[in-house]
Amino acid sequence: MDMYDLIIIGAGPAGITAAVYAARKKMRFLMVSKDVGGQAAWSGDIENYTGYQFISGPELVHKFEEHMRTYSIDLKEGEAVSGILGSGDSFTVQTQTSGWQSKTLIICSGKRSRELGVSGEREFRNRGLTYCATCDGPLFSGKDVAVIGGGNSALDAALQMMRIARKVYLINNTAGLEGDAVMREKVAQSPIVTVVNDARVVSVQGEKMVSGLVIDHGGKQRLLGVQGVFVEIGLIPNSEFISGIEKNPLGEIIVDKYNQTSIPGIFAAGDVTDVPEKQIIIAAGEGSKACLSVFRYLAKQSSS
Amino acid sequence: MDMYDLIIIGAGPAGITAAVYAARKKMRFLMVSKDVGGQAAWSGDIENYTGYQFISGPELVHKFEEHMRTYSIDLKEGEAVSGILGSGDSFTVQTQTSGWQSKTLIICSGKRSRELGVSGEREFRNRGLTYCATCDGPLFSGKDVAVIGGGNSALDAALQMMRIARKVYLINNTAGLEGDAVMREKVAQSPIVTVVNDARVVSVQGEKMVSGLVIDHGGKQRLLGVQGVFVEIGLIPNSEFISGIEKNPLGEIIVDKYNQTSIPGIFAAGDVTDVPEKQIIIAAGEGSKACLSVFRYLAKQSSS
Repeated sequence: MDMYDLIIIGAGPAGITAAVYAARKKMRFLMVSKDVGGQAAWSGDIENYTGYQFISGPELVHKFEEHMRTYSIDLKEGEAVSGILGSGDSFTVQTQTSGWQSKTLIICSGKRSRELGVSGEREFRNRGLTYCATCDGPLFSGKDVAVIGGGNSALDAALQMMRIARKVYLINNTAGLEGDAVMREKVAQSPIVTVVNDARVVSVQGEKMVSGLVIDHGGKQRLLGVQGVFVEIGLIPNSEFISGIEKNPLGEIIVDKYNQTSIPGIFAAGDVTDVPEKQIIIAAGEGSKACLSVFRYLAKQSSS
Repeated sequence: MDMYDLIIIGAGPAGITAAVYAARKKMRFLMVSKDVGGQAAWSGDIENYTGYQFISGPELVHKFEEHMRTYSIDLKEGEAVSGILGSGDSFTVQTQTSGWQSKTLIICSGKRSRELGVSGEREFRNRGLTYCATCDGPLFSGKDVAVIGGGNSALDAALQMMRIARKVYLINNTAGLEGDAVMREKVAQSPIVTVVNDARVVSVQGEKMVSGLVIDHGGKQRLLGVQGVFVEIGLIPNSEFISGIEKNPLGEIIVDKYNQTSIPGIFAAGDVTDVPEKQIIIAAGEGSKACLSVFRYLAKQSSS
């Protein structure tokens, strides 16, 4: 089996940026990914990728992919990694059908949003329903919105939307909010936020765009008139395929500021890591850092 | 004196990205900077800012500034920070003529390249003479180049250029190279690299672009025919104005992966920090991270 310098797992903003840097360093590398663009491809309008005042997620991903394709890159698309074997100076990346060997890895397999699993959710995605208040919140200035969830990310979304929206419903399916006390207090003090505990989302309503949310509250159905729905019931890191590496309780791969993981030779970048903020510009920066860390790591191996 | 939530010191890629995020979070903030764009404005052709296949440093900086200017941002341009006073929940940023108070700071004042101070250096900057092999190296594929310096950054530049250029002169003004042994060995083993110790640069020659480098070697002047000159005699972090904060021996401000410095309430991002790689995409990502860390920090202060 051929030995690569580097295999990049994932082709979202972190993986694509790592690939651009690896190509420019003339590394012998391979990319393995289910798709191209990752979660960024699902973003609505993006106003916080420095250099682009306003661009949609799919457009930005298209520019990323075009950028990457200016280099001759060996991308195994449609391949889901099922396992990682090996250690030291040789790792094997396995999928259902193939396997490749490499001296180093960058894991940037991202996260996936936990879905509500209700009617209308997929239909209105990016048409009023979003999974990222930081990304899309400012688009709902002066509107009425609902945030779904009761933990820190839902509170974070509610705190953000308090400053932007006209009215914020916080729909929580337990008896009381969890998350940081300070955040809970601030939410409680806001005249704009209405917390609805013990409530379950039934469906998302609308025509072209979201116009309402049906919830079940104490056995009764209620229709809330909202133009925005923020689903904040958690993200799931795509890190199941690798074991024996340090992860935090959320399943995120722990990295240091050089993007090194607990296993020498394995680096990680982007949303799959424990860097708390999940932003495209951050993932891109982390992808670059990870690749340059790999370059330094290989340069220090006397065998390379 | 008014109390800001945040003062951003510096308006390069890190500062501008932090400002975009701060504006979108509706923070009450101020930017204080000597200039806009920082070192990025001095970069030649940029091919590694994800999303832009090919753009010049000044063009990218123009896009950054335009992006930032879509928000109403209070930028005190032309102001060099002379000192930081205070601690805890209130800091004062001082310049020669003014002072402003803030609950938090993000320091992204960047670095400046140490210059050779020889004839032709400023004339040929970005016309064959550059201070960043990682940024500009790939533009010299198949060419003859000189790297000036004898430490790790010069070795790093030589190692990069070995893979790209036809011939690499490494011009060192001491009796022998310093820097990592492994790097020195690799450079010594390369048939492409010629190390010239005890040599001093006299001038950079050319017409429109660099065509040669005059060095003084053992009292004799020699003209080397090169199309590229990489000045790698160090970078100086613009961190002199702040004391009492943890810095590494290079004077870089030490940050953790959340961009926190050793002083609570003071964050740092970009080239002024000890993150080893100095890249625009990394600085932008770090600026975003720093701003979101500030946002979390303020959210946790009960007084805010």
